[in-house]
Amino acid sequence: MDPAWSLPKGHVQPITNMVKKFEDDAKRILLAHGSGGKLSHQLIKSFVKKFRNLPLAKLDDSAVLKFKGKLAFTTDSYVVDPIYFPGGDIGKLAVNGTVNDLAMVGARPLYLSASAIIEEGFSLNELEGIVDSMNRAARAAGVKIVAGDTKVVGKGGADKVFINTSGIGLVDSGVDISSKNARLGDKIILSGTIGDHGIAILNAREGFDFRTKVKSDCQPLNGMVSEILKVSKNVHVLRDPTRGGLATSLNEIAKQSGVGIEIEEEKIPVKEEVKAVCEMLGFDPLYIANEGKLVAFVPQKDCAKILNAIKKNKQGKDAQIIGAVVSRHKGRVVVKTSVGGERVLDMLTGEQLPRIC
Amino acid sequence: MDPAWSLPKGHVQPITNMVKKFEDDAKRILLAHGSGGKLSHQLIKSFVKKFRNLPLAKLDDSAVLKFKGKLAFTTDSYVVDPIYFPGGDIGKLAVNGTVNDLAMVGARPLYLSASAIIEEGFSLNELEGIVDSMNRAARAAGVKIVAGDTKVVGKGGADKVFINTSGIGLVDSGVDISSKNARLGDKIILSGTIGDHGIAILNAREGFDFRTKVKSDCQPLNGMVSEILKVSKNVHVLRDPTRGGLATSLNEIAKQSGVGIEIEEEKIPVKEEVKAVCEMLGFDPLYIANEGKLVAFVPQKDCAKILNAIKKNKQGKDAQIIGAVVSRHKGRVVVKTSVGGERVLDMLTGEQLPRIC
Repeated sequence: MDPAWSLPKGHVQPITNMVKKFEDDAKRILLAHGSGGKLSHQLIKSFVKKFRNLPLAKLDDSAVLKFKGKLAFTTDSYVVDPIYFPGGDIGKLAVNGTVNDLAMVGARPLYLSASAIIEEGFSLNELEGIVDSMNRAARAAGVKIVAGDTKVVGKGGADKVFINTSGIGLVDSGVDISSKNARLGDKIILSGTIGDHGIAILNAREGFDFRTKVKSDCQPLNGMVSEILKVSKNVHVLRDPTRGGLATSLNEIAKQSGVGIEIEEEKIPVKEEVKAVCEMLGFDPLYIANEGKLVAFVPQKDCAKILNAIKKNKQGKDAQIIGAVVSRHKGRVVVKTSVGGERVLDMLTGEQLPRIC
Repeated sequence: MDPAWSLPKGHVQPITNMVKKFEDDAKRILLAHGSGGKLSHQLIKSFVKKFRNLPLAKLDDSAVLKFKGKLAFTTDSYVVDPIYFPGGDIGKLAVNGTVNDLAMVGARPLYLSASAIIEEGFSLNELEGIVDSMNRAARAAGVKIVAGDTKVVGKGGADKVFINTSGIGLVDSGVDISSKNARLGDKIILSGTIGDHGIAILNAREGFDFRTKVKSDCQPLNGMVSEILKVSKNVHVLRDPTRGGLATSLNEIAKQSGVGIEIEEEKIPVKEEVKAVCEMLGFDPLYIANEGKLVAFVPQKDCAKILNAIKKNKQGKDAQIIGAVVSRHKGRVVVKTSVGGERVLDMLTGEQLPRIC
């Protein structure tokens, strides 16, 4: 973590007039913003002010936090292109993505770090907007951004801005959620429509005029997970189907738990607009990324109350039981199609949509 | 964290022949390595195999770890150019940098996350070499890499490879080390020569033929900090002077603690080769980055035994008392020059050496 994050407000000296003039004129990131010197401090000070909280305000090479219990720890770098899209931006995505990774082991997300790699010449105003967006997302999810870092690379050395977030969460005792824990007979609940994020990104990137208003589903899932765990701790698997989509997530679970999975195509909620774009371009919504949906593997006896808890959550109103863990075809996922057929659903092969998150 | 990290060994299906052929031929990163699908899994599997440890082997969206006590948390992204340099590479730097950030609050580094942003076309063999280097550095520092992620961006979207590491450490009770804690009368110990890292990078980047063998000092400092804390917990400040060099670190401490600092130029160890290159290019070694040195602010009564503990450590043989916290010029750093003069040592202004870490 950059110790510059620890610079208290009001202690940064004015930068030289020449640099200041350039800044006032252009409001762009300079290589000097990555030097560790005065401009770095100025840049970081503006972030710290936004994220202001006790561990960050104390500020040193590391944040020091109280902690007791089972700790969840995760990291993700975000390189989404474009950095703005309907329903979000790279900042919101970077916070929610890591919040959700923590939630998927049943953890209550507590602390996040944020590290940005910025291309020389990137707009300072845009950067500030992204930091604001991260701040709003952190508040909405109830997490604190307690550690940070910024690096600047020369023009052409990176594409605008990349953000890494790492996260720490607390796993309550009695909670043991893992992709290895799917058991025969488990019901599979999907919390809502699939493909929204991927199609929103595709539209934004390619400038397609599909007359569709598909927005990314980018949202935090820790509230939903907390509601689930309130009604039952018997949750075996949670997974947010991001890159590679639902199909890839289910394949991972089938392999890691060594079980067979069967899902029913017609039970899977897909928005009409998403379906339409997918048909036009030859994509399968089952492979399209989501950023605010989860699949839960739960024992049949608790399925009804867990589904109920998910549906009560505003992000879970379209939740469906989409399938079950079966004794056949271990390690594989089979889809029952709406016309009564069956097909093996494989993991994503090759590249479908690059830089989706 | 990419759930693909959680794919157990032996469960990845062979990739299609066509892609495999390309891979065998070229051994280069493809966009499909970032898709979340089969190639992503194959790539990540090769990392997981190297880092194999229990939390990573269990593997989910987050690693779940036992933890009790005061927790230190930090993050840094590494964009060093070139990615190989005398004394290290981006992988070793990414591990040691974050280990050292944890050590600088007196924490025992325990767990690291690693996230790579890779340019399409980057050599798979090189990537593997960097992962090996991270693994060796992690073992040397006694930390475990328990969470990971990889992203791929198109050719020209990033410069080769960027690595983020975040880290978690345990702060023992009774330890309270912060840049805010410098006190009047504190002695300032510097653990060794300055400027080695920055000059090594500069040589490697520019291809200067200075007939100098300066190597980066890139190394973990947690062992040294542990030795220090064994002899005294009365350490007020620890700081590793990375970007912006010793001058910037001391300025940060002066400002954050609201104290005046005086250092003696002739006490500061600088290698002859480093001095020579600096003189030739007009750099001041006080502003050049280090990646394996620390400054410690300690009360006078414990200074001798702490200096002794540092000197016993092989990385600390050149340690020196370089100055003290004084009652004059609060918030500023003053250097007493070898000819008896005084000058104010300001924070780094502008850009000296971009992409140094």
